[in-house]
Amino acid sequence: MKLATLRRGGRDGRLVVVSRDLTRCRLVPGIAPTLQAALDDWVSVEPKLAECAAALEHGVGNSEVLPFDPAQCAAPLPRAYHWVDGSAYVNHVELVRKARGADMPASFWTDPLVYQGGSDDLLGARDDAPFGDAAWGIDLEAEVAVITDDVPMATRVEDAGTHVKLLTLVNDWSLRALIPGELAKGFGFYQSKPATAFSPVAVTPNELGDAWRDCKVHRPLVSHVNGQEFGRPDAGTDMTFSFAQLIAHATKTRRLGAGTIVGSGTVSNYDRSLGSSCLAEKRLLEQLEHGTPRTPFLQFGDRVTIEMFDAAGKTIFGALDNRVVKQ
Amino acid sequence: MKLATLRRGGRDGRLVVVSRDLTRCRLVPGIAPTLQAALDDWVSVEPKLAECAAALEHGVGNSEVLPFDPAQCAAPLPRAYHWVDGSAYVNHVELVRKARGADMPASFWTDPLVYQGGSDDLLGARDDAPFGDAAWGIDLEAEVAVITDDVPMATRVEDAGTHVKLLTLVNDWSLRALIPGELAKGFGFYQSKPATAFSPVAVTPNELGDAWRDCKVHRPLVSHVNGQEFGRPDAGTDMTFSFAQLIAHATKTRRLGAGTIVGSGTVSNYDRSLGSSCLAEKRLLEQLEHGTPRTPFLQFGDRVTIEMFDAAGKTIFGALDNRVVKQ
Repeated sequence: MKLATLRRGGRDGRLVVVSRDLTRCRLVPGIAPTLQAALDDWVSVEPKLAECAAALEHGVGNSEVLPFDPAQCAAPLPRAYHWVDGSAYVNHVELVRKARGADMPASFWTDPLVYQGGSDDLLGARDDAPFGDAAWGIDLEAEVAVITDDVPMATRVEDAGTHVKLLTLVNDWSLRALIPGELAKGFGFYQSKPATAFSPVAVTPNELGDAWRDCKVHRPLVSHVNGQEFGRPDAGTDMTFSFAQLIAHATKTRRLGAGTIVGSGTVSNYDRSLGSSCLAEKRLLEQLEHGTPRTPFLQFGDRVTIEMFDAAGKTIFGALDNRVVKQ
Repeated sequence: MKLATLRRGGRDGRLVVVSRDLTRCRLVPGIAPTLQAALDDWVSVEPKLAECAAALEHGVGNSEVLPFDPAQCAAPLPRAYHWVDGSAYVNHVELVRKARGADMPASFWTDPLVYQGGSDDLLGARDDAPFGDAAWGIDLEAEVAVITDDVPMATRVEDAGTHVKLLTLVNDWSLRALIPGELAKGFGFYQSKPATAFSPVAVTPNELGDAWRDCKVHRPLVSHVNGQEFGRPDAGTDMTFSFAQLIAHATKTRRLGAGTIVGSGTVSNYDRSLGSSCLAEKRLLEQLEHGTPRTPFLQFGDRVTIEMFDAAGKTIFGALDNRVVKQ
């Protein structure tokens, strides 16, 4: 099942069920007005949405069907109560450390890094991404994320996977020039992490078939900058912490409310021929090779697209396609 | 005007207008079902709520009035889209540094420290506060917080104050033993910051009279541990960054959605005779005086109350009164 949120009817938009090929959709006001409402009552709502999705797939009730237009989509959750982003590709963290000549503590391989991002203002797949100053070092971060139902405190890794209800793609924009000063203060990211953008649709795990296993998404995550391929690392390869591990980590001292978004962090493979998912990594590799970075950060007017395709080459989540603009 | 949320009618509870003396309240389903709904449309909703509050004060329509019981209250926003907590009492930060023999960068006096807390699970004023292990160093943090409407990106300090729509009190529970390891990882707090508790009511700034000026609350914040007074520092004294400054800082790279909660951080005065607002500070003072901390962190069964009184000795927000319990 694929779900999206049309930008209409208020701050939380309107939930639609979307056809697998992303050409058609249907509003479901009688089932759930918004995706948050659906997640709040997932056990009873999910079967009804699945029934509607099956009817849509089989062309039943076509009179109520709308053409699906990603440009009309808000983020699947236009605002969410919790957005926690991991840094699950530890090879990327290791590389960052290496570039500045620092060893990485061994605990980084067993204890996940996470930070909490802003969730009150999430960008849709075709929204402009506004930034105040190009000197802030504007960067993409192509990621995969899951959306959970209610997760109890102290959930074990082996139980955490059942709480994954939906998956989505993310561009977790970063402001690289603001990060060192902010992290030096010791409280983590805040100004350096502006509003995050999401793919047009969120999908249930079964849409991924056997590409969803071990609580990881085993497909390449393809990003382009200004139409040029930038990277296609596999999201299931070199993911040190599965989503189950990230969820379990997040619940050590707190409950997660329905609609919590848990991100993978920048997807990154040891196989550097597959490119990167953020400019910072590419620049680090350039620095290691040439002594200095060569690729600039993003400028106003640049476009970043992020997409994932199934084995048959069909888009799974639709494309994020955001333009960097001056605030 | 004073507002609260009764724990009924779903995850977001039901909004009530509360009498100034906190004895009576009235549901307002015809105006706004929830506090978030009110904040989403504050310009049109606020006058209607104010009218209802005036009628309640003057005893009009008493048949619809309920007795107000803080034990029935959820947090004013039982879940929120954004909870950003400052560390505005820089003397406290300076003390923390001093205790470990570290200088504080001069920029800490001009550049606010903030972190983003969990907002999908906020505790009511009489809820038990659940923790997995007393060895985690359970601590209170008595704070003041404001709730904003929509705040544009790059809001200036001089414009930020107009976005303060409500004020509330906070116990921003901390797990001190988890903080050093987590901060050493460089991404800031997550596991060390469990669910935050809120006072029974949130109030409009005018309820504070001239105690609300310069975007600070000029009243003592009184906390007790197991019935013993623990501290009564003045929230308006030694607050290096006003709420306007904290809001402006938060909007440098992002918009704030309606219902954003902005916290002051642990209230702390240079005048140590007024006590502290967290055990960590008291322990640091003991360490500086005696070479070692003497006061233990909280244990299961301990109770923490936090309250603020007006000049006539009347409670403004009602009392937080939470018991520390084993998860």
